[in-house]
Amino acid sequence: MPFDFTPLFPASLPPPAVRWAGAPKYNFVGGNNDPGEVPLDGLMAAAQSVLQREGRTLATYGLNSGPQGYRPLRDFLSTKLKRDAGMTCSADDILIVSGSLQALDLVNSALLARGDTVIVEKDNYQGSLNRFTRLGVTAVGIPLDKGGMRMDALEAALQDLKARGVTPKFIYTIPTVQNPTATILDESRRARLLELADAYDVPIVEDDCYADLVWSGERPRAIHAMSQSDNVIHIGSFSKSIAPALRVGFVVAPWAVMSRMLALKTDAGSGALEQMVLAEYCAAHFGTHVPALRKGLRKKVETLMEALNEQFGTAAEFDDPKGGIFLWVKLPDNVDSLKLYQAALKEGVAINPGPEWSVDKDHSKSRIRICFASPSHQDIREGIAVLADVCRREFGVPTRSSNVAKA
Amino acid sequence: MPFDFTPLFPASLPPPAVRWAGAPKYNFVGGNNDPGEVPLDGLMAAAQSVLQREGRTLATYGLNSGPQGYRPLRDFLSTKLKRDAGMTCSADDILIVSGSLQALDLVNSALLARGDTVIVEKDNYQGSLNRFTRLGVTAVGIPLDKGGMRMDALEAALQDLKARGVTPKFIYTIPTVQNPTATILDESRRARLLELADAYDVPIVEDDCYADLVWSGERPRAIHAMSQSDNVIHIGSFSKSIAPALRVGFVVAPWAVMSRMLALKTDAGSGALEQMVLAEYCAAHFGTHVPALRKGLRKKVETLMEALNEQFGTAAEFDDPKGGIFLWVKLPDNVDSLKLYQAALKEGVAINPGPEWSVDKDHSKSRIRICFASPSHQDIREGIAVLADVCRREFGVPTRSSNVAKA
Repeated sequence: MPFDFTPLFPASLPPPAVRWAGAPKYNFVGGNNDPGEVPLDGLMAAAQSVLQREGRTLATYGLNSGPQGYRPLRDFLSTKLKRDAGMTCSADDILIVSGSLQALDLVNSALLARGDTVIVEKDNYQGSLNRFTRLGVTAVGIPLDKGGMRMDALEAALQDLKARGVTPKFIYTIPTVQNPTATILDESRRARLLELADAYDVPIVEDDCYADLVWSGERPRAIHAMSQSDNVIHIGSFSKSIAPALRVGFVVAPWAVMSRMLALKTDAGSGALEQMVLAEYCAAHFGTHVPALRKGLRKKVETLMEALNEQFGTAAEFDDPKGGIFLWVKLPDNVDSLKLYQAALKEGVAINPGPEWSVDKDHSKSRIRICFASPSHQDIREGIAVLADVCRREFGVPTRSSNVAKA
Repeated sequence: MPFDFTPLFPASLPPPAVRWAGAPKYNFVGGNNDPGEVPLDGLMAAAQSVLQREGRTLATYGLNSGPQGYRPLRDFLSTKLKRDAGMTCSADDILIVSGSLQALDLVNSALLARGDTVIVEKDNYQGSLNRFTRLGVTAVGIPLDKGGMRMDALEAALQDLKARGVTPKFIYTIPTVQNPTATILDESRRARLLELADAYDVPIVEDDCYADLVWSGERPRAIHAMSQSDNVIHIGSFSKSIAPALRVGFVVAPWAVMSRMLALKTDAGSGALEQMVLAEYCAAHFGTHVPALRKGLRKKVETLMEALNEQFGTAAEFDDPKGGIFLWVKLPDNVDSLKLYQAALKEGVAINPGPEWSVDKDHSKSRIRICFASPSHQDIREGIAVLADVCRREFGVPTRSSNVAKA
């Protein structure tokens, strides 16, 4: 008679996971990257040289670098963040973490308590929204336009909260290639955001995970770089620029917050081999690898946009993104993207339904997120054709595809 | 004027960390290993071959293996756990985690709520005790003797709790090279433990992190292997057998618990490169590497025991351990190990004071944990001599060292 663990589970536990059944054939979900763009030779050479030189430090937790992570990787980041994002921070201001998701967990644990309120872009990263929900934190959504978070709406929300006696714990923003809208907040809006943050005494959490993937290679200065009052916690990652299965991200934070995050980071350090290999590789090759990666991603999104135009015609509305790995697509109002998601999955096509990526379930009902970095060009074309067929069968749209009228 | 984050911190937050000041000269704390025993050539070769063959899968979260971790590593573990520990489990029963600390967090989160009670060995791993404290869980300590957890005392505690209407959520045990006592629970006690667990309807969490380091190479069957009712969650690690800075551990659990842990593991997978390199290396070399490592560790502990005998004489009491990386030492009753810890640290010697490794602060007051794997033989001798000097200065003992009477 097997022991029954069920009565032991606390009531607050999330529902159980289902068994993994393998990836769908046409996989347009998850922040996966292009397998062809993994810099294998460079990573292999980096592994050899760094292990040869200092592999024996693997015998020590945290290497010889202490709890904030491998020092040469923090040194690389300090230089990179200055060069690319205009940020002034030293290795001592940087904490290496096991992917930016751990950064979110540490920031949330250090600052949030049940019942708190945060401000977020209305359409947002599912992983962040789910975290706030699990913590019992209210996420107030600010609408976006083609320029990202609307500052008039942010000001109104701050005023409204203040009138109700609510001080949000922080403004969580993905300003550079926003997830899922792919919008980029320009520097004038960033300046306004900082003014509002100062005026209402609310700090900012800047999630900059996609910032390396702006097609032009030119990104606005980080909000962290523009702040005069050290009120910005900055989060980044190597998942999008090198490889997502390497779980290496980072947080830049003032010591007041850093010292609290360190006290909460009771994992005896993040994976050392990945940190060592990344530091070795990136110091020499980051600057040439990433532009090549961006070119490949740009070609992928062009294939995706062509396929959508061909298969959906005017039924699929989207803006040509300025960077990233996903497209946020508006389908006709009668399309329920949660139903479309279920129906498409049965045909081997995985997409993200809008309501899972937004605090506004009505606004996002007919929207979907399509990740384009991982599937091949051919799979993008085939998968979007299947998606259009499913959508037509379920919702009667698109009525035309491949320039042919459909029943 | 810098932004003040202080008012934002929730009241429940642990105290802030202090800035890392580097490792002490004589470092007898932490589960660090012998730098000379890191199998560098093997790890380099493994990195090359596995990256060459399947490195492109790094572009996909979780590789092609799903959320339970890199499949070849789980396959290796399935075989290893059968061979070494007598366990019958398939890759589907195994979850790869970012070090066994994440395993503890997931097990605790899946099973514990504030106010719960667990049963533990009285002297215990600080990381586990701290976790229970932070969660607001009462840890009831069971005394140990030379054979590990005393089953008569466990039975009495279970009876006592039952009489008080308390059902412990689980019995947490480190049965094979217990931390810090280095005791090994033999199979007859394991059988009795399972009887008691069945009788009182309490499951067991078996933390087997040190089990590879039994000098003889022969370990009792895992409690998991002996259970008839699938009531054991088994935790293991590669930190002690390969290298601690690689953050790779694992949990074996029935699906009822596994599915809950998976729902709680929202980190998008554990580090893939470390999993890949370990799987590649271990499949070929684990069986030859670990016996060599054990030999080296045995020599280290012999140096430590000689140094203690020479410097402390009869003032230091300990049992010759049957494996592991630490020694649990009893000093004379007047020694306050928390004070000794502070004084020794000033002289560059780090030890673990007993009260941080026990639920019984009186019992552990004059005890210390000394980790011997990382320091060189010379540093062990020098560090123990400094420790004896500090101890004599602070507490008047040992009165003799190096066979010479001291003032």
